[in-house]
Amino acid sequence: MMRGVRVDGVPWRTIWLDGDAVAAIDQRRLPGELAVVRLRTAEEAAAAIRDMAVRGAPLIGVTAAFGLALALAREATPAALDRASALLRATRPTAVNLAWALDEVRDALANVSPSGWADAAMARARALADADVDTCRRIGEHGLDVLLDVVRRAGRGDRVRVLTHCNAGWLAAVDWGTALAPVYLAHERGLAVEVWVSETRPRNQGALTAWELGKAGVPHTVVADNAAGHLVQRGLADIVLVGADRVTATGDVANKIGTYLKALSARAHGVPFYVAAPASTIDFRLRDGAGVPIEERDAREVVELGGVPLFPPGTPVKNWAFDVTPAALVTGLVTERGVCAASAEGIARLFPERG
Amino acid sequence: MMRGVRVDGVPWRTIWLDGDAVAAIDQRRLPGELAVVRLRTAEEAAAAIRDMAVRGAPLIGVTAAFGLALALAREATPAALDRASALLRATRPTAVNLAWALDEVRDALANVSPSGWADAAMARARALADADVDTCRRIGEHGLDVLLDVVRRAGRGDRVRVLTHCNAGWLAAVDWGTALAPVYLAHERGLAVEVWVSETRPRNQGALTAWELGKAGVPHTVVADNAAGHLVQRGLADIVLVGADRVTATGDVANKIGTYLKALSARAHGVPFYVAAPASTIDFRLRDGAGVPIEERDAREVVELGGVPLFPPGTPVKNWAFDVTPAALVTGLVTERGVCAASAEGIARLFPERG
Repeated sequence: MMRGVRVDGVPWRTIWLDGDAVAAIDQRRLPGELAVVRLRTAEEAAAAIRDMAVRGAPLIGVTAAFGLALALAREATPAALDRASALLRATRPTAVNLAWALDEVRDALANVSPSGWADAAMARARALADADVDTCRRIGEHGLDVLLDVVRRAGRGDRVRVLTHCNAGWLAAVDWGTALAPVYLAHERGLAVEVWVSETRPRNQGALTAWELGKAGVPHTVVADNAAGHLVQRGLADIVLVGADRVTATGDVANKIGTYLKALSARAHGVPFYVAAPASTIDFRLRDGAGVPIEERDAREVVELGGVPLFPPGTPVKNWAFDVTPAALVTGLVTERGVCAASAEGIARLFPERG
Repeated sequence: MMRGVRVDGVPWRTIWLDGDAVAAIDQRRLPGELAVVRLRTAEEAAAAIRDMAVRGAPLIGVTAAFGLALALAREATPAALDRASALLRATRPTAVNLAWALDEVRDALANVSPSGWADAAMARARALADADVDTCRRIGEHGLDVLLDVVRRAGRGDRVRVLTHCNAGWLAAVDWGTALAPVYLAHERGLAVEVWVSETRPRNQGALTAWELGKAGVPHTVVADNAAGHLVQRGLADIVLVGADRVTATGDVANKIGTYLKALSARAHGVPFYVAAPASTIDFRLRDGAGVPIEERDAREVVELGGVPLFPPGTPVKNWAFDVTPAALVTGLVTERGVCAASAEGIARLFPERG
């Protein structure tokens, strides 16, 4: 069971070392093609994050860590360290894992002389990647308990219907994923788990989720983002389970734009709404979700598709990439240490050392 | 002011008589091209409705009426009448205007011998088209009062920011539109009206709304459907104003899929949620919104775009075209007779003869 996710029988991670380079699945090419992008410099790592060749809060963090290590392999100086850190940190503003991972790598250099930085940084980056796999597996186990509880309460045999948003599967992490980790474990244990996949405009990360679930044989159905209210209203989802890009110390959840609408519909119909996220996604210094920087991306993501215009030329666009779901709408947070309430008390109980 | 909507200075309706044929704007070609489709038979009218060359509840009704008249121009027999009625009625299930308009045409034949049916039917269809223009203009005037009230309460000068969904503009009717009629009047009166346009997946009718508003010079900004919660939460919309495909006698509102999510976010943040619809959209015989037939459309609308696959081949899809917003979330209904509460009492007050 602990073997990780496989694609057509082959175990994959989203990111790995390949000689002197870092290799990653190029998620811009999915679901059409399983292609690999090679990153040789911090600049290439930054571009991969910015252009979303890699995406998903945990994977963004790990990629940034590798990017910093690549920079130090070329030039192990404080100036190079600062430059690469700033470059990588500026790629995307919302997921706090990015800053966290960069800080982790910098911490690893604290008692090392610059001549040892390259090795120390790469060792820490690899350790972060390995730790992410373990973290996600634990999230999966705790989330599985949540799913089993939902199944028991529903009293309809072993069936559980999960509504998710965006992609919080293994493609969003190094392996397993966050919101989908419990789904994979449930499927392996023989539960009849079915997933409603939101297409997730404007970038259609639902296609990544559909691809992942298809490769793992997990039954799933794609719906337009607009369908979330209808399907919850009609009693077709037993739980909403999503990932996060940043969770505040009080339990507000910044996640892919549209998550808040799913939370509202879950609340309106008494459906539990859970957020699966590692501690690295929790911003222990930020209390209010209104303080999360919300990335705005290129208008073309909304008004074009593959270069073909969908809207009249010059149509003004706002393209927020994330929204904030207030803690009051979150039934619980599923972390690597267990499930807690989305509140300062709940989070402090699981992570007392961060208070 | 009462001149109707113009495109580049030319007055347009969405549908008109052209010799022996009925001409209509082919909305599948918009926003790229303003093309016209000619309908010569009931079959062609039915196909235009089914394939969404014409769409929008009021326009569907008028097109069906013309379709029935076209059928009777070829064969004025009870059998032909029944056949064409059944064909047109079966094209789309949710908008009640379709059945209403067919019944209107049949009523016009009641005291006419079959030899006069063709003329009587065409006369009634033309009258329905003209009446739709007048109805929408009245909706615009009553809706303008709502907007002025919102402006006054907001106390920020003449500015009002409207969030709408799908297309309930003149393209959805014969002229003026329903939800957009007040917007056009407000713009003409010099109010600083701005419109948030939801892209409205899977068919992107937001592009029609953007096109309409652009041609009329009304400031507007396109957002992904997923952004509705965020923008209402951030205080960026003063009112949500949408059309409807069917309103029940108790005020439940069936409208384009995703409308319910907007209603939930409006309620969560105390933003008024109004529905603009003519009496022909009210199903006076149906009480519960759960009884509205919800059309399911082709999966390809979701998983392909212009023939290009967006999802892995064979991905299962549910493609509901509408959802139901419960009356309790609707601040008011804007009809041609005025504004009323979305309740049996409110509707009966405006339409006592239908009780």
